[in-house]
Amino acid sequence: MAEEPTKAGYAGGGDREGDDEQVVNPWEVTAKDGGKIDYDKLIEKFGCQRLDESLVRRVERLTGRPAHVFLRRGVFFAHRDFNEILDVYERGEKFFLYTGRGPSSEALHMGHLVPFMFTKYLQDAFKVPLVIQLTDDEKCMWKNLTVEESKRLARENAKDIIACGFDITRTFIFSDFSYVGGAFYENMVKVAKCVTFNKVVGIFGFTNEDHIGKISFPPVQAVPSFPSSFPHLFSGKDDLRCLIPCAIDQDPYFRMTRDVAPRIGYQKPALIESSFFPALQGETGKMSASDPNSAIYVTDSSKDIKNKVNRYAFSGGQDSIENHRKYGANLEVDIPVKYLGFFLEDDAELDHIKKEYGAGRMLTGEVKKRLVEVLSELVERHQKARALVTDEVVDAFMAVRPLPQMFG
Amino acid sequence: MAEEPTKAGYAGGGDREGDDEQVVNPWEVTAKDGGKIDYDKLIEKFGCQRLDESLVRRVERLTGRPAHVFLRRGVFFAHRDFNEILDVYERGEKFFLYTGRGPSSEALHMGHLVPFMFTKYLQDAFKVPLVIQLTDDEKCMWKNLTVEESKRLARENAKDIIACGFDITRTFIFSDFSYVGGAFYENMVKVAKCVTFNKVVGIFGFTNEDHIGKISFPPVQAVPSFPSSFPHLFSGKDDLRCLIPCAIDQDPYFRMTRDVAPRIGYQKPALIESSFFPALQGETGKMSASDPNSAIYVTDSSKDIKNKVNRYAFSGGQDSIENHRKYGANLEVDIPVKYLGFFLEDDAELDHIKKEYGAGRMLTGEVKKRLVEVLSELVERHQKARALVTDEVVDAFMAVRPLPQMFG
Repeated sequence: MAEEPTKAGYAGGGDREGDDEQVVNPWEVTAKDGGKIDYDKLIEKFGCQRLDESLVRRVERLTGRPAHVFLRRGVFFAHRDFNEILDVYERGEKFFLYTGRGPSSEALHMGHLVPFMFTKYLQDAFKVPLVIQLTDDEKCMWKNLTVEESKRLARENAKDIIACGFDITRTFIFSDFSYVGGAFYENMVKVAKCVTFNKVVGIFGFTNEDHIGKISFPPVQAVPSFPSSFPHLFSGKDDLRCLIPCAIDQDPYFRMTRDVAPRIGYQKPALIESSFFPALQGETGKMSASDPNSAIYVTDSSKDIKNKVNRYAFSGGQDSIENHRKYGANLEVDIPVKYLGFFLEDDAELDHIKKEYGAGRMLTGEVKKRLVEVLSELVERHQKARALVTDEVVDAFMAVRPLPQMFG
Repeated sequence: MAEEPTKAGYAGGGDREGDDEQVVNPWEVTAKDGGKIDYDKLIEKFGCQRLDESLVRRVERLTGRPAHVFLRRGVFFAHRDFNEILDVYERGEKFFLYTGRGPSSEALHMGHLVPFMFTKYLQDAFKVPLVIQLTDDEKCMWKNLTVEESKRLARENAKDIIACGFDITRTFIFSDFSYVGGAFYENMVKVAKCVTFNKVVGIFGFTNEDHIGKISFPPVQAVPSFPSSFPHLFSGKDDLRCLIPCAIDQDPYFRMTRDVAPRIGYQKPALIESSFFPALQGETGKMSASDPNSAIYVTDSSKDIKNKVNRYAFSGGQDSIENHRKYGANLEVDIPVKYLGFFLEDDAELDHIKKEYGAGRMLTGEVKKRLVEVLSELVERHQKARALVTDEVVDAFMAVRPLPQMFG
């Protein structure tokens, strides 16, 4: 079968081999020797394309609005066929967006919000429909949660997702336990027929000891890429292109999907992929569900945020004020500056901070204070929005229904 | 995990090993050296129980009616926990029946009818609800049919199944493409979590080159064993026992199911298993979809039946009338007698034929003539019944609905 270009066939499990020790797949993200993820290498290995300045300018030109912070600061740094999506849009046609979440935790942290904040921007900028998959079946299998607990977490997470401001007239949220069946299941079978066990071992690194639930899952995440999986939305629009904003660790699923798509008569989905959001303890640290101090959660109070940032955010500042004034901060490893790079919208202010802090004229405490303000404001806004998301609102987003303003 | 008893762990793929060359699994039934299937060996290897005379008598006593031909003549010859189902029934409780068909062909042949004729008898005798699964997804994957063609065949086959006389007030027929989802899918995930790839290799003989659709399928056939897969029928009756009438080649699916059931808090299904229906060319022959002369189809005319029986039915009679009168027929290999053993209900007449034919006093031609009468009558009756099964009737049987007389 014609494969998506990758340096050494499929990556994923295969990433462990040779001297290339960084592992990036949907379940594991580990850099070489505890260092940073080498994104250039990842692009080369996965065979995706770098999202360059000219594409960012093209987005601004086509949508008539400034590029999102995550675009202009390179958070979304890689893509597959995003240029084709822009071609489609430029011709006056539409596409649809697909993103998702594995509901493994009660509350989301800042890293979880990144794809949703960006997807909301894309939805607003291009005025296109969006499907959001909650893979409660996946989490039931991988995290060994009960079906009931997975379904409950999916609904809780849906509230946080809705609080990101999605337009109910253009957004369909579904959980696998609620939606698998019908045309969606037909597409699952069509995809599964095209992928051997050896193939999923190569892509995902499964072993013979893995349970068949895991082995059965990739088609479930693949098929929302196809408009025919949503007859209530896209009936008769089977050629509609799909754009998937996601973190790059999800690339294996969609490499597989893109391989299979033409063989079953479907369009390949396009992708726009982000780097990983760092833990408070630094880019080499890992945000851990068992360590609430490794991340800022949307449920944190301003006091929590202040405490976590001040106590745990890894600083690139020097260990004495004297040295700091002398040598300046190391911005490459400084988490407060990195976080501000995600969430401080004002380019001029960010540049100012980087310049002053890097030169040692601004102290870590000042930068942290600004970050606490930015995060507190963001989290507070999120909490206010989430408080308005009742169970009825969740039901409304998750109802299997036509979307009235889909291409409006 | 505690395994169902088998002589050498799971059989199926493993049957090929050593000097035990008979292969019996859902996709292949091959006897050793082209001989007959050794059913005693199969019982020992699979670890099921022989269905003895005392169980047959118990069925008669409990239901107050004579045992079905297929029971009293040993067509259904093996079981797992059938005695427990009878205990349940004797205590005045109920159970439900589950059987199915993989819709791989346009028309059914006599062998396909066997489990359905028997299931109808069980439904009538025990007055219990019945679910019939049409595995259109399986056939789409194994026979490489399109989704549409598999769905069409499922509905065509449903007509033949309904024509066997099932009671619409107690019968729910579903196809996987139409019904997978909801509680059924939740159970699929629960089962899949409990079965490793190595396990399905051991049970079914899958290889690394098999596609993940095949590897994903066993839970689909497993979960109709559990009442919670049908909330519209058995809501609140999660402990209801299930009895599965099927041919013994389906045993691997339900060995797996019985292994998993207690681990997910469900009752093990009980089984009542039949031997295989022989091809016209003899028990060592194989009924082949590519050879219409290897089987009598429900679509055959009386003329077709007469022609096939006379020309192709393997005879145990001697090659000259003189030798036949002298040595008599070999009933062990005679297909007309075997077929009469399935479909001639009159025990006295069957005994008479066997005695006279075996002694050489009756000729092959006479036995074949009687078989043609019996089959023609059966097929004609079936065709009349099938002509009444409109698409509306199919829809009614396949509607997701409560069954009004379920335990009446």
